[in-house]
Order: sequence, then structure tokens, then C-alpha cells
Amino acid sequence: MKPIALDAMGGDNAPAEIVSGAVLAAQRGIAVALVGQAEVVLSHLKETSYQGNLVAVVDAPQVADSEEAPVKAMRNKPQSSIAVGIGLVKKGDASAFVSAGSTGVVVATAILDLGKMKGVDRPALGIIYGTRNGHALLLDVGANADTRPDYLLQFAFLGNLYMELVLGRKQPRIGLLNNGEEKSKGNQLTRTSYSLLRSSTLNFIGNVESKDLFRGVADVVVTDGFTGNMVIKANEGFGESLFWHLSNTFNSRWNLRLLGLLLRPTLNAFKLNMDYREYGGAPLLGVRGNVIVAHGRSRAQAICSALLQAQQIASQGLAEILKGGIAVNVTTTGD
Amino acid sequence: MKPIALDAMGGDNAPAEIVSGAVLAAQRGIAVALVGQAEVVLSHLKETSYQGNLVAVVDAPQVADSEEAPVKAMRNKPQSSIAVGIGLVKKGDASAFVSAGSTGVVVATAILDLGKMKGVDRPALGIIYGTRNGHALLLDVGANADTRPDYLLQFAFLGNLYMELVLGRKQPRIGLLNNGEEKSKGNQLTRTSYSLLRSSTLNFIGNVESKDLFRGVADVVVTDGFTGNMVIKANEGFGESLFWHLSNTFNSRWNLRLLGLLLRPTLNAFKLNMDYREYGGAPLLGVRGNVIVAHGRSRAQAICSALLQAQQIASQGLAEILKGGIAVNVTTTGD
Repeated sequence: MKPIALDAMGGDNAPAEIVSGAVLAAQRGIAVALVGQAEVVLSHLKETSYQGNLVAVVDAPQVADSEEAPVKAMRNKPQSSIAVGIGLVKKGDASAFVSAGSTGVVVATAILDLGKMKGVDRPALGIIYGTRNGHALLLDVGANADTRPDYLLQFAFLGNLYMELVLGRKQPRIGLLNNGEEKSKGNQLTRTSYSLLRSSTLNFIGNVESKDLFRGVADVVVTDGFTGNMVIKANEGFGESLFWHLSNTFNSRWNLRLLGLLLRPTLNAFKLNMDYREYGGAPLLGVRGNVIVAHGRSRAQAICSALLQAQQIASQGLAEILKGGIAVNVTTTGD
Repeated sequence: MKPIALDAMGGDNAPAEIVSGAVLAAQRGIAVALVGQAEVVLSHLKETSYQGNLVAVVDAPQVADSEEAPVKAMRNKPQSSIAVGIGLVKKGDASAFVSAGSTGVVVATAILDLGKMKGVDRPALGIIYGTRNGHALLLDVGANADTRPDYLLQFAFLGNLYMELVLGRKQPRIGLLNNGEEKSKGNQLTRTSYSLLRSSTLNFIGNVESKDLFRGVADVVVTDGFTGNMVIKANEGFGESLFWHLSNTFNSRWNLRLLGLLLRPTLNAFKLNMDYREYGGAPLLGVRGNVIVAHGRSRAQAICSALLQAQQIASQGLAEILKGGIAVNVTTTGD
């Protein structure tokens, strides 16, 4: 299989942690093409003292500016690591692209260069997360800050296809993230989306509240990219604050410190189950190629996870499987 | 001081837990007027074997229907516990109203019967929550599912006033809940709101991500009621799932069970710090009267907390202090 193109310049801890992440993945047998300013990347690579032949460097002289509006950034930097990396996927020289850089730029570039799947107006970022009894897919978690009901319906069909074809789930239960379970609940977007989903051929189970995401009541939960992003970041912050409080407590007295040591495996297991970063990144669903957006704060281990996930998705042939696109089917009038 | 009117019929655990909550508060010296179907409420009150004279019952023959649209529910049930309870506040027979019932009906009734403060188009639900270094106010957490930038600006002035006058915070730091720190981030609503806040006389510190809420970077964080509600419910769900995992772990082996017992005080302290329910409910800011919305799933202890909070707010004369209303001031052009 072709190597996975990795954006060496994207993210809060680039390029050092990204390069280290590539090496970790290479040590697990994954071929990685580090895309970035060649000199900088090579000097970091040297520091890792990696001796194998699974890490290559592809030069991309420009660095995307996360302060710039995505489309502008994309136009101004045709030789950025994001543009070059996605170009490798397009040419078939890479099996997937992974970036911890600007989500907006990655999404815009992927849509423009790789193209959208048939039936998809807006590709969406999805994350697979652990529930109490399995796994579920939440989308969109950040590709579209402003969304329309018909886009949410497409997200649902996209998620449905992903769960069916990639994860082998039969008749996935589709839920709509909302601020209450009753169908009258919601804002304009969710109330109209509810009717659309209700009238579709999907196995729509109704509204899902954000507090119930981890209960595993649905296999696919759809939301707009703004709300989805807010919810996963809220969970992230809550988890961090809890661990901050716990470690403060544990370090305040020696017997509690002991307790902390004893408890660590349990807490880590929970983090692993709840923290989507441990699963790697968020696959961009709806484009004609395998693109994974990793967390901006990713360190080496998280980058390695994202590469492992990319490898899995690429070997399953996600983009190939989904290339037929989605067909939005509506049978009855929503109530 | 006048008693606090308490909606005996609202919430998932009404009336039994609500009545028990009233008794708990009465045992701490708070006068409560239980508003609901008198016979039902009296029979529950008898079961608590409360002997004091601080709990009264006010008859409200109708029960609001949470499935109905708020304005409709309000019109159809002029004798509901919500309508009667807010009526007591209006007439000056109660110092505050507390309800765990339908947020929509409480908000709509309070606006119609008590009226809005000067300068406020949309009252907002605010919650005071514990951060790593103090407390902060998040609003709106559910009164307005659909919001406009000028409403968000009003929320900011409302929160500013609350923090200054009620909590004595000088020049409160105002933040905008958003999906990134950079000013270019957000959806249409937050990007326009950013400019408005930027050009106001407030001490606006910029965007705050949901993951940073608990870090205490701002004293007041404004958001639309849909997103605010999503974020607090996400935290609630994350906390619940963590405790579920921990208790599963603790119960799986006897030595871990011991660990769980040892750890309980720490975890409870964290819950207390993070869980807004422990602080009582969410005050409805911007109406001419003291109204507190408690969590729909409140049990007796949470209702007691909400009553304690209502008592505190009423004794501080919140509605009196804020009756002058807000004046939205804009000095410069936003950038």
C-alpha cells in the first residue's frame, strides 16, 4: 500500500511532535510521507535517530496560516503542506492524508482538489467514540459551522453508509443531537431537520440529548459542525478539569498519592474509551479520498493513533467503498 | 421575607421529590409555598411527616404539558402551577419562584406576567459554575434556542450587571463561547456577535472555547440558548459516564471497592464544584422578578439547593437591583 501523507507543519506541536508521531507509526510498520518544509522536517527527523526506511520527506515550501480564512489561505498557499499532502492522495501517491492543522483549510482543500462524493453538498467530519456498550459515530464535528436541514439529512445518509459498509452495522439507528427528547424541542435548524429525518428511509430514532451520547442510544448522531465541535470540546475540557482536580488531590497527601497510582489504570481506561483523540482523528466523510483531521493539540502518540486509523481506513478502502455516493431517500411526509 | 413559591408539579420526579425538597429547605428555615394540585400535594406533604409551619400549599388545579409548545401550553393552562406560582411573585406574595418544570413554559409565563427589564429583548437563563479558581456565569443555557447577535450582546450586558452588582466582581471579563480562539472562528451568529462585543464598552476578552470554560478565563461567557444547553448537558453526561465506569470498576473487585470508598470524598467534591445543579438552578435574568429554573431531573436535595439559591437571590434583592435594566453601550467599530 502507498504511504500515508502526514502534514508535518500543522498543529500546535508541529513539527517536532508530528515527526515523532510519524516515527512511532513507522516503528509499527506504517509507511509515512512527511509533508512540509524539507530542511526543517529533516532536521527534526534526524533528532529522532530513526534508522528505518518507512519515513519519507516530501517538500512543501509554504506553511498555511490558521489565522487566515480557509479559502483565502488555500489560494495564497498552493505549496502548503496541506495542499501538497492532499495532492499526493489525488495523484494516488498516498493512500490517505492526515493533518493536525487548520480544519478549515484541510476541508476546503480536500473538497476542491479531491472533489465531493455524489449526493453530498457538504462533507462532514465524523468521530467514532466509545459508548457504554460499543461505538457510535458523531458528525459533523467541525467541517461546517453553518448548516442547513438538508445538509444534516445528507450527514445522516453519509453516517448510515459509513456504519453499514465500514463497520458492518445493520440498519444503524440514526439520532439527531438536540436540546430535548421531545420532537417539539430544538432550534429552527433541528426542528426542520427532525421532520426531514422522520420522512426519510433511514432508521431514525429521534432526538438524542448531549448528556446521552455516551449511553449508546444511537449508532449515528448528526449535528451541525458548530454544535458538534462544542460538545466534543466540552467533554475534553470536563475530562481535563477532572484529572486536574484529581491530581491536585492525589498530590496533596501521600496516602492519596498512593491512591492515585492505584487508580491510574482505571482512569486511563476511561480516557481511552471517551477520548476521541485516542482513536486517532476525525475522518472527513463525503470527499473522494481518505482524509483524517487530527486534534490541533496532538502530540506524538495522538499522531501515531491518527496514522493507525488512516491505515485502517485506507486498507478497508473507505474512499473506494463510498465512491458510489449517497442517495437521499424520502418516503413519507415528516410529522 | 415572603415565602418562595415552588412548582410542586414540575419535573421528572414531581410531586414527591419536590415536596421532599420543600421540607428539606423548611428544615433550614426557608418558608416555601408549594404550588400545585392541593389534594395531591397535601397527601405527599403528609407522607413526609413534616410538623413545622414553614410549608404552605397554594392550589393550582391545572398541570402544564411539557409536550406542548410553550406559548400554547401557557394559554391553555392559566391555572397551572407555573402560572399561579409566577402570579404570586407578581402580586408580591412570594419573593421568588422555583420550578423544575418546562423551561419554555416558565420563561414564556415569566416574560408575559412579570415583564422584561428595560433594554432586554430576550431574558436569558444563567448558571453560576465553579471554575479552577473561582466562579463564572454562563448564559444563555436554554431560554432562547434561536438567538441573534444583538441578543447575545444584551446577554453580555445582563451578565456584566449580574456579576458586578450581585457578585461584586469589578469589570467582569466577558467572553464569547466559540469553536476557536481566533476572531475569524465561528458560525454566522458568533462572528457577528464578536464584532458587536468588540465594539461595546464591556471588558470583552474574546472567544472562549467550551474546553476552557472550567479554566476560569472569563467571568461571564455568553452563548445562544441552544449551544449553552448542549454544553452543560454534555458535561453532565460525561460526568455521569465517568462515574458509571468508575463504579463498575470499583464493584468488580473488593480491593477496588475499597479504593472507591476512599476516593468518594474527592469525587464528590469535584461533582460539587462542576455540577451546576448543586448550586441550585439557573436564574432567569432579564425579567422583573426572581425566577429560578431547576433541572428537570431534580430530586429533593437539588430542589432544596434551588430554594436556598432563590432565598439568597431574593434576600439580595436581585430583581430590585436589576430593575433599572441594562443600557447597551457601543463605543467603537468592531474589527
